[in-house]
Amino acid sequence: MNKIRVGIYGYGNLGRGVEIAVANNEDMELKAVFTRRDPSSVSLITENVPVVHADKAEDWKDKIDVMILCGGSATDLPVQTPALASMFNVVDSFDTHAKIPEHFSNVDEAAKKASKTALISCGWDPGMFSLNRLYAECVLPNGKDYTFWGKGISQGHSDAIRRVEGVADAKQYTVPSEEAMNAVRSGSMPELTTRQKHTRECFVVAKEGADKAAIESTIKNMPNYFSDYDTTVHFISQEELNEKHSGMPHGGFVIRSGKTSENNSHVIEYSLKLDSNPEFTASVLTAYARAVVRLANEGNHGCKTVFDIAPAYLSPKSADELRAHLL
Amino acid sequence: MNKIRVGIYGYGNLGRGVEIAVANNEDMELKAVFTRRDPSSVSLITENVPVVHADKAEDWKDKIDVMILCGGSATDLPVQTPALASMFNVVDSFDTHAKIPEHFSNVDEAAKKASKTALISCGWDPGMFSLNRLYAECVLPNGKDYTFWGKGISQGHSDAIRRVEGVADAKQYTVPSEEAMNAVRSGSMPELTTRQKHTRECFVVAKEGADKAAIESTIKNMPNYFSDYDTTVHFISQEELNEKHSGMPHGGFVIRSGKTSENNSHVIEYSLKLDSNPEFTASVLTAYARAVVRLANEGNHGCKTVFDIAPAYLSPKSADELRAHLL
Repeated sequence: MNKIRVGIYGYGNLGRGVEIAVANNEDMELKAVFTRRDPSSVSLITENVPVVHADKAEDWKDKIDVMILCGGSATDLPVQTPALASMFNVVDSFDTHAKIPEHFSNVDEAAKKASKTALISCGWDPGMFSLNRLYAECVLPNGKDYTFWGKGISQGHSDAIRRVEGVADAKQYTVPSEEAMNAVRSGSMPELTTRQKHTRECFVVAKEGADKAAIESTIKNMPNYFSDYDTTVHFISQEELNEKHSGMPHGGFVIRSGKTSENNSHVIEYSLKLDSNPEFTASVLTAYARAVVRLANEGNHGCKTVFDIAPAYLSPKSADELRAHLL
Repeated sequence: MNKIRVGIYGYGNLGRGVEIAVANNEDMELKAVFTRRDPSSVSLITENVPVVHADKAEDWKDKIDVMILCGGSATDLPVQTPALASMFNVVDSFDTHAKIPEHFSNVDEAAKKASKTALISCGWDPGMFSLNRLYAECVLPNGKDYTFWGKGISQGHSDAIRRVEGVADAKQYTVPSEEAMNAVRSGSMPELTTRQKHTRECFVVAKEGADKAAIESTIKNMPNYFSDYDTTVHFISQEELNEKHSGMPHGGFVIRSGKTSENNSHVIEYSLKLDSNPEFTASVLTAYARAVVRLANEGNHGCKTVFDIAPAYLSPKSADELRAHLL
């Protein structure tokens, strides 16, 4: 059987995660990694796989079954996914929720024109969490769902702290409130404010001589990022930050409670506890890359989301095997 | 828009659950309930819905979009699902795991011959738990999954106790071991014996003058049902049994842990906490009934399982709405 030939477009944390995930799936092989950097400056984990400049991707049109895009949602993917969908079957992790309809429409047009299959907004949220929100809502229509994130590192919030005057380095953990989660699990369907759902914990390295009180106050009052939350700031040394906070753990919870009849309520809970956010996200992208290739082989083109893909397409096992062993 | 016309075949706890679930879904209407009993002896919750003898089902071929089968897996469904799939789109909850391949093949043949769509083995296990086993395995191929059931009433085990000499009535709870679940959640991928995963708790009403020690010993040593488990037997009065143990709660956990790389492991956990096993099962069947009608309308016939159905088919919402609000 021919292996699925995978390309990786963009080689940061997520790209390296996909490289690892492809190695974990025996029916796949990494064909090439595409980068906007000088290819000679990039070294891969896998041996004997070429690093190619992004400008040369078109030359690989017939050598790659699916391209997994590992760029960022802010500026990379809105441009890259439609462009690459005109040459390849593609998977991306576009996560700017408000712009998903627009991105879908751009990618759908490009993919259909080129008779390619594209999957956008894959990963864990959007992705596995979205699936769980959907399944739970369909099964318990009279109910309410709640998504909690963490405990985990938020890159965006960490970056925001690093931009504060006097800050040398920082990591921010998003922490879901146990109290809020337990209220949800009780089936009482509480109304929860932003402040009640999550707290934020910051580990900050101050520059020498910096005004720590001013830093703490600036962080805690930062609109959008922190002002709506109960935030704790800890000042620590660069050494301690490197030693204790250099991982990229994350995770979260999707909980729906609902009633079927007056006296009977039910709670559906899905949770993830991840040592490495990028490696897990990459694993989801890679499983869905298999599905995308199959849909493309069936002539099912255009843009899809995880909602549109039957679960069996994700597995290397046959339908008979799945029915006999996993059902 | 025309509502989906649902038929219920078999009117016990599960059938009543489907009746409630159909009422909870605005795009559906209950068209008729089919029973092998004397229809005049059956009264429904819903007003103005006919109760029809099972023998007359064929007369309703053109008046029902999907028939939800609510019989038992031991003797009813192996016969009923293929027979009804030759006249209707159908959904069943067949749960004899070892016989799923045979049942699938029988139903597939009947449904294809009649150009109908059938879904078998739907509910929560098989069903939602199967989906979670599949998704988690695809996303974390280097891992191990564990299914725990309970805390909940097992009908089969309760029945087995009631057959013991001297027993007037009984309820049995399957209880998952917190210790075993925590070992799994730690990511250590333990090997667990049957005894380590679940305990069994029995509430027994003895007949007057019965030998309680003999009853307890017979239960605890019963092969298949109890001898492989740590079992606790409580003797209580019929009044207490009725008062405290008349519900049908259930639930459980599907937990998979796996590694992406040497130092990074991840835990995916799905759990259900159900006040009413039959009402929740019925809610799953009903959501999938919508999917079955859509597949049938697309000409996608034959037998399916939950693995074959894209999640979007379960929802009454449009693809645009799902992308904008749930993704």
